[in-house]
Amino acid sequence: MKQNPPNKTSTTVMRVIVPLQGLVQGGGGGLVLGSIIPCALFYFFQLYLKSKSSSDSDDPPPPSPSPEISPIPLPPSGGLQRVQSVRSSIWSPRGHAQVSSRGNSVIKQLDSPYDVGLMKADENPYHQFTNLSGVIQLGLDENKLTLDLVQHWLVAHTKCSIIGHELQINGITTYHPFHGLSELKVAVAGFMSQLIERRVKFDPSKIVLTNGVAPALEMLAFCLADPGNAYLVPSPYFPDLDRDIKWRTGVEIIPVPCRSSDNFSIHITSLDRAYNQAKKRGIKVKGVIISNPSNPVGNLLCRETLYNLLDFATEKNIHVIANEILAGPPCDKSQEFISMAEIIESEEYDRNRVHIVYELSKDLYLPGVKTGVVYSFNQNVLEASKKLVRFSSVSSLSQRLLVSMLNDSSFVDELIKFNIERVERMYNLFVTGLKNLGIECVKSSRGLYCWADMSGFIRPYSEKGELELWEKLLNVAKVNVTPGSCCHCIEPGWFRFCYTNLNENEIPLVMERIGKVL
Amino acid sequence: MKQNPPNKTSTTVMRVIVPLQGLVQGGGGGLVLGSIIPCALFYFFQLYLKSKSSSDSDDPPPPSPSPEISPIPLPPSGGLQRVQSVRSSIWSPRGHAQVSSRGNSVIKQLDSPYDVGLMKADENPYHQFTNLSGVIQLGLDENKLTLDLVQHWLVAHTKCSIIGHELQINGITTYHPFHGLSELKVAVAGFMSQLIERRVKFDPSKIVLTNGVAPALEMLAFCLADPGNAYLVPSPYFPDLDRDIKWRTGVEIIPVPCRSSDNFSIHITSLDRAYNQAKKRGIKVKGVIISNPSNPVGNLLCRETLYNLLDFATEKNIHVIANEILAGPPCDKSQEFISMAEIIESEEYDRNRVHIVYELSKDLYLPGVKTGVVYSFNQNVLEASKKLVRFSSVSSLSQRLLVSMLNDSSFVDELIKFNIERVERMYNLFVTGLKNLGIECVKSSRGLYCWADMSGFIRPYSEKGELELWEKLLNVAKVNVTPGSCCHCIEPGWFRFCYTNLNENEIPLVMERIGKVL
Repeated sequence: MKQNPPNKTSTTVMRVIVPLQGLVQGGGGGLVLGSIIPCALFYFFQLYLKSKSSSDSDDPPPPSPSPEISPIPLPPSGGLQRVQSVRSSIWSPRGHAQVSSRGNSVIKQLDSPYDVGLMKADENPYHQFTNLSGVIQLGLDENKLTLDLVQHWLVAHTKCSIIGHELQINGITTYHPFHGLSELKVAVAGFMSQLIERRVKFDPSKIVLTNGVAPALEMLAFCLADPGNAYLVPSPYFPDLDRDIKWRTGVEIIPVPCRSSDNFSIHITSLDRAYNQAKKRGIKVKGVIISNPSNPVGNLLCRETLYNLLDFATEKNIHVIANEILAGPPCDKSQEFISMAEIIESEEYDRNRVHIVYELSKDLYLPGVKTGVVYSFNQNVLEASKKLVRFSSVSSLSQRLLVSMLNDSSFVDELIKFNIERVERMYNLFVTGLKNLGIECVKSSRGLYCWADMSGFIRPYSEKGELELWEKLLNVAKVNVTPGSCCHCIEPGWFRFCYTNLNENEIPLVMERIGKVL
Repeated sequence: MKQNPPNKTSTTVMRVIVPLQGLVQGGGGGLVLGSIIPCALFYFFQLYLKSKSSSDSDDPPPPSPSPEISPIPLPPSGGLQRVQSVRSSIWSPRGHAQVSSRGNSVIKQLDSPYDVGLMKADENPYHQFTNLSGVIQLGLDENKLTLDLVQHWLVAHTKCSIIGHELQINGITTYHPFHGLSELKVAVAGFMSQLIERRVKFDPSKIVLTNGVAPALEMLAFCLADPGNAYLVPSPYFPDLDRDIKWRTGVEIIPVPCRSSDNFSIHITSLDRAYNQAKKRGIKVKGVIISNPSNPVGNLLCRETLYNLLDFATEKNIHVIANEILAGPPCDKSQEFISMAEIIESEEYDRNRVHIVYELSKDLYLPGVKTGVVYSFNQNVLEASKKLVRFSSVSSLSQRLLVSMLNDSSFVDELIKFNIERVERMYNLFVTGLKNLGIECVKSSRGLYCWADMSGFIRPYSEKGELELWEKLLNVAKVNVTPGSCCHCIEPGWFRFCYTNLNENEIPLVMERIGKVL
């Protein structure tokens, strides 16, 4: 990794990365015929060892025990011999039953700075009256700006919406179809249309409801890709995507770097290069995952980019997953959000390759209610999802509450209106605050965050320098932000600030705290 | 499959089954040295073909397209050539992006009679006033017997429990730890202890909350086993287990048949035989899944059986997953439910191999609220589960409602008391009704169902005969029950009847309807 002196104009100096780093090894792509004979001998030797070991033991110790795994305690010292109690007489000669390799690899995952920051802010949260020395949370993309409206609505309507006017108790206490109540699907489709000013009519029959966006993305990964397959994902991308896609499905992510020099736009040539590199390594690419607006950058994908993406996907015969969960409140009304649904409606593309992910929580400020949406144009995907969603279905309480809330059109209209006003106002105040500190942000249009260039403040100009600044911000300034390296950004010194967690009057304090450590 | 004439005494005549049927093929266990050379040639030929095909095409057609898959529509006839529109100009030469192999295999799964029955009863449900010709639902293990109590509580407490006394709106609208609120874990641990008369104190720190029992079982499968590994499961077992364990994890189930001749008890010798057969085929068995009380039989596992199971698991160094979701209301108070937690507390076994699954919905009659429990003595499993539960976390609305409900001890006491009385009464009435029709049930102790021997009424004595009777019951008698073949019962003619869906006064009608088709 290059460690150049900090230089604000040298943002083109990139960290040396291998885009395919961390991928599974491909299947024999580089096999040279001349090596066949020793390979064959080695192969059968392995096979022989395997069959021998499987008949000798049931649970061989894992091949490379990692120091990060919390060790399973040993049995009491007498455990290996038969002792008096009949019940405790048998100790397996191999020790304890192990967790699976995949279980172990999840345990081994160290908490990233993103996780550490969230935890620290959670353990010691700032409060203007009760905890002035606490950590200010700018790492979580929550929107608290319309909390007051949601609160009033809940106080007035919770009982009625959940219990119903005529004690329809069956509604919350019996089994429902796992994929969601049809009333809610209709309401969600209407709300999604309303957010994009009814330019597209979303079809409730293309919706499968999930309890959040993580299971929605994971379910699509199960449906579209097999273990060892990969998705191309323009980076920087939001930190949770790695675990959502990779942890249980065995599917890999190939980050495709975007650059600050052109506002972190997606380039088809980069996607094409990554696709070809993967192919050479024997890795089958099954799709592209885009986030529109980009999370963490906040820029919108223009119509031309969306068309180009679809052309690329069509040419390669792969899927497009469009994560549109932050389509809602703009921080710059001049730029229009365009859903992938609009593009696919208006042109003669093959719709079967397009899948949209949405989540109600961001626009309704209800993350605890956990309601995500898979919107697919592919009947096979819908069919598989309706079966697989048994593992991630939405609680009947949440469903009933949301049906009432979304059908209350005057409330929804007001919520959307205030959300737009307040997000825009906060964005301008926050970005101006950063500017006064000498920190420039990428021009953002949507999302609940801004993407700030602090490369001039890091030393050395590297991931190390970035993480040192992040640590100072967290532990000295007591401000939790997300460092760009957690988002796979290849240029060091970028940070995501989620300002919709704040009150307006907290901005001066945030700026004062940040200013102190720069 | 043998098709003997019906004979009530010939229940020992079993269908010929291969217990390992349906399992993945093992890894080279039967390799004979003499076949190495042709094998090696074949192997490298395959490798050559694979590397060739992966460089020729990105998405080869699936190897064996099944007629059950709904076909992906072909592009319009002009699609293969470039047409005027720039946007619709590129059609991949390979046609449409495919779903994954595992997605396809989920789609291919035909609905079992269990599913078909549930759907038919759902589409046309019997109602004593509004739909007399509808289907009576005895296929779903729901407990409606204490609905009145739950209803009263919800009407009185929903708003207060969800919104809180002091408008603590943050409680339902912000992010929570995915694995559950600690208040709810404390309440759930207390409730689980209360159900077994406080003979064991459950520890809240060993709990991970999930949104239902399906994700709890699946998550344990991910944590304990790798693709190609297997669990031993005494059969008959409940129909949903196959999809919960097998669909996404790649883990297999090896049914271990129990027999009517000894009340479908579990025998360690059968488990041992199945274990050894699997080993010979190169399949690694990672655990045993038991259901206590057995679902569908309803019998309880005695202390001796639980000890024997743990001895077996210890000897083989494998895990034990105890599904105790129906531990609640007894239909025979004379028999005591013993949790695996009691056994493991009292003896010096290695606790790391024991994992309990519980669900609140059965005992609280709140399936829509979707709250399951993984209770594990293994720190590694807890650690992995706390991370993986991001895909299956419980809605904050459900959590807050349940905290209030479970902390209302007078309500909980009353609910448990009435549940016991009503389940016992219904069981006796229902089993007597069946007896009057000449149908004997296995002596059941817990659960919300009885397990009835109708082998005398099927012709031929085979799965075919069983399914013909099931179809008559569903379509002629309009009573939906679960045929034993859906529970992997190896003796034909057994049926599960869930009577806790009924009102007492509906029993005569059920018996009349069943009587008509016998």
